[in-house]
Amino acid sequence: MNAETKRPFAVEIERIARAARDAGRVVAKAGSERRTKALRAIADAIDRRAAEILAANAEDVAAARASDLAAPMIDRLRLDEKRLAGVAAAVREIAAIADPVGQIVKEWTRPNGLRIGRRRIPLGVIAIIYESRPNVTTDAAALCLRAGNAVILRGGSEAWSSNRALASAVADGLDAAGLPRAAVQLLPTTDREAMTELLQRDGEIDLVIPRGGEALIRFVAERSRIPVIKHYRGNCHVFVERTAKPSAGLEICYNSKVPRPGVCNAAETILIDRAIADSFLPALAERLGQAGVELRGDAEARAIVPALKPATDEDFAAEFLDLICAVGIVDGVDGAIRHIERFSSSHTEAIVTEDARVAERFVNEIDSSTVIVNASTRFADGGELGLGAEIGISTTRLHAYGPMGAEELTATKFVVFGEGQTRK
Amino acid sequence: MNAETKRPFAVEIERIARAARDAGRVVAKAGSERRTKALRAIADAIDRRAAEILAANAEDVAAARASDLAAPMIDRLRLDEKRLAGVAAAVREIAAIADPVGQIVKEWTRPNGLRIGRRRIPLGVIAIIYESRPNVTTDAAALCLRAGNAVILRGGSEAWSSNRALASAVADGLDAAGLPRAAVQLLPTTDREAMTELLQRDGEIDLVIPRGGEALIRFVAERSRIPVIKHYRGNCHVFVERTAKPSAGLEICYNSKVPRPGVCNAAETILIDRAIADSFLPALAERLGQAGVELRGDAEARAIVPALKPATDEDFAAEFLDLICAVGIVDGVDGAIRHIERFSSSHTEAIVTEDARVAERFVNEIDSSTVIVNASTRFADGGELGLGAEIGISTTRLHAYGPMGAEELTATKFVVFGEGQTRK
Repeated sequence: MNAETKRPFAVEIERIARAARDAGRVVAKAGSERRTKALRAIADAIDRRAAEILAANAEDVAAARASDLAAPMIDRLRLDEKRLAGVAAAVREIAAIADPVGQIVKEWTRPNGLRIGRRRIPLGVIAIIYESRPNVTTDAAALCLRAGNAVILRGGSEAWSSNRALASAVADGLDAAGLPRAAVQLLPTTDREAMTELLQRDGEIDLVIPRGGEALIRFVAERSRIPVIKHYRGNCHVFVERTAKPSAGLEICYNSKVPRPGVCNAAETILIDRAIADSFLPALAERLGQAGVELRGDAEARAIVPALKPATDEDFAAEFLDLICAVGIVDGVDGAIRHIERFSSSHTEAIVTEDARVAERFVNEIDSSTVIVNASTRFADGGELGLGAEIGISTTRLHAYGPMGAEELTATKFVVFGEGQTRK
Repeated sequence: MNAETKRPFAVEIERIARAARDAGRVVAKAGSERRTKALRAIADAIDRRAAEILAANAEDVAAARASDLAAPMIDRLRLDEKRLAGVAAAVREIAAIADPVGQIVKEWTRPNGLRIGRRRIPLGVIAIIYESRPNVTTDAAALCLRAGNAVILRGGSEAWSSNRALASAVADGLDAAGLPRAAVQLLPTTDREAMTELLQRDGEIDLVIPRGGEALIRFVAERSRIPVIKHYRGNCHVFVERTAKPSAGLEICYNSKVPRPGVCNAAETILIDRAIADSFLPALAERLGQAGVELRGDAEARAIVPALKPATDEDFAAEFLDLICAVGIVDGVDGAIRHIERFSSSHTEAIVTEDARVAERFVNEIDSSTVIVNASTRFADGGELGLGAEIGISTTRLHAYGPMGAEELTATKFVVFGEGQTRK
């Protein structure tokens, strides 16, 4: 009685987690074709039930407006016909990704004749904890199903009606393919105690992926008994090295910073090789200044362009997610590597250079999850890298590092074929 | 002052963890040849300082005898000249394994011309927490170094002097190769509070691997803020299917159970296809009975061989680690799969069959970390599978599943080469 009072969601969450475990086994064995069928049927159900989903979303948006939610949050929440068509299209794209389950990663034969292989299997049950974007409901469900997993979804309270309507379309798709509805379950409450209860079910759930702000990720990481794949921040750097073509340097800095400053793969710091700073920095300040970017420079940068605001160590560590950018002058690739090692968030760093040996050093020594030569940091994205889709970007190294696609939602098992071998 | 009193090891553990992080960066960048040189020098130092190591070990063994430690524990602890030569030889074998760092796992080109690759990098800093076997000190250190990692070792108190002597030989080897001694640190105390403090350092340590009994593993898993790779139990099954050659069935059951009953890849349950139980079970009972194995059978097995003791559900779930074996009669491969799914520890299961389709079904549907056709369960071992060595066997799927070799101590980063591409 007392325990019940203290843990009001324990029984229900246990039931949900166990149903997910059982459903995961069915999805894993169902085979690639059936999973593809389910994914296509989910996309069709989203199209078919568009009016209902948009009505539910309109309720969420109205409630968000009434509660004075910030405008960018409301924009993330809002669906319209075009966006919803995009949601269905994203599920169809995931349906077209090669099914990783059963893939043989490697095969070899031992001197005693044993034939060994490593085959991909689903991870099992994945919990996704996310905030206001309702499209995560179907994106995450689809990518987990593609890799043969069951999924438990816990969306934000502000998207409650939208998520319920989308989850109902997902259930239609599972029905159509004869897969259990428990393969994709939306938690029936957004209560944080229910989420905390979920994070204790390490017997049934194999992985938790939080998607959202740093506060959410820390909340999950601190309470979870289940392994968590974290993506805290993206403090991405662009380093313009002395041999860089100035035009390439300007274009890559502009593209990495300006068009979408609020995303995690946008650049937050630009480092300039001292050897070219006198010419490159004024050109950069003009180009980014015209685009409305506030540049904050170290002392050396401000000696070249006095109009820059001063940059502190906090600025060099910051993920501004805005039209603000720190600028530092460094001594060649060594200086850039030292600066990045000090302030790295392990997300993405780019170098602009025409010197192949310098590029190779940068690529070898920078240990961020994506290291880019002569291209925008904005390519650090599962779709852009060719993974088909992404469920998140890991900035810790265990299991997955960088953008995570369907393969990252699998494990491998050893398969051994013998002819009666025994061990001496 | 108060915080100091409550957390007496906090300052020292922080220093150790930070030194490991810094040393890990050096080891990662040192290159394959230098790591190989260090490993060979460690093996040489073990040989050179054998007398000192054996004297230290003799102290541990004497103290263990004085405190009435169980005989098998004392045997695990004990080194002699031959065993110590084996310890050095194991390090030399690890020196000969292909260095995984820098390996390109996969490469592809995007339609926009970006060339993408995934390159192996070290995980960073690994903590190994183990019990009485002193050889883990050098095995674990060597495998972590092979993959470019730093390592923090926390051995059992009963092996304290042996571990210190071995760690000192490791330091000699690091010196000889010009690598920092902090790349391999033995905790200066076996106090559990110090270990608990270590398990909070998720900023510096990337992975914890506990090696030992279930109590140790649970202790670590419950306290760690760092990801833990667990290996709880091995309840391995052998299923003898109706088409099996009886002689192969008997040999594989014998080899899986008898020669080393105390290891995790030994069989604990034998399942027999109902269609051959009348003939196979009596032969099995005779063969294993002669070897001193106590068989515990389900009702159907005891109807065939009445001398068997009865097996309960607890027996079918048990890891006996002894000359005891549960026996169940099942209805073909389906019955075997159902039984294994119910009692599986996710470690290793084997089938003996001459029917390739049945073998393929077993291999597809059993989701344990190693699935074996027509060979002994004892091949579930990093060395036997060709990984060169193993640091443990994971029975959970995240990051690694099954025996873990040098590759499993790495991550991959994305490396992108462009020619000025920007994102639209």
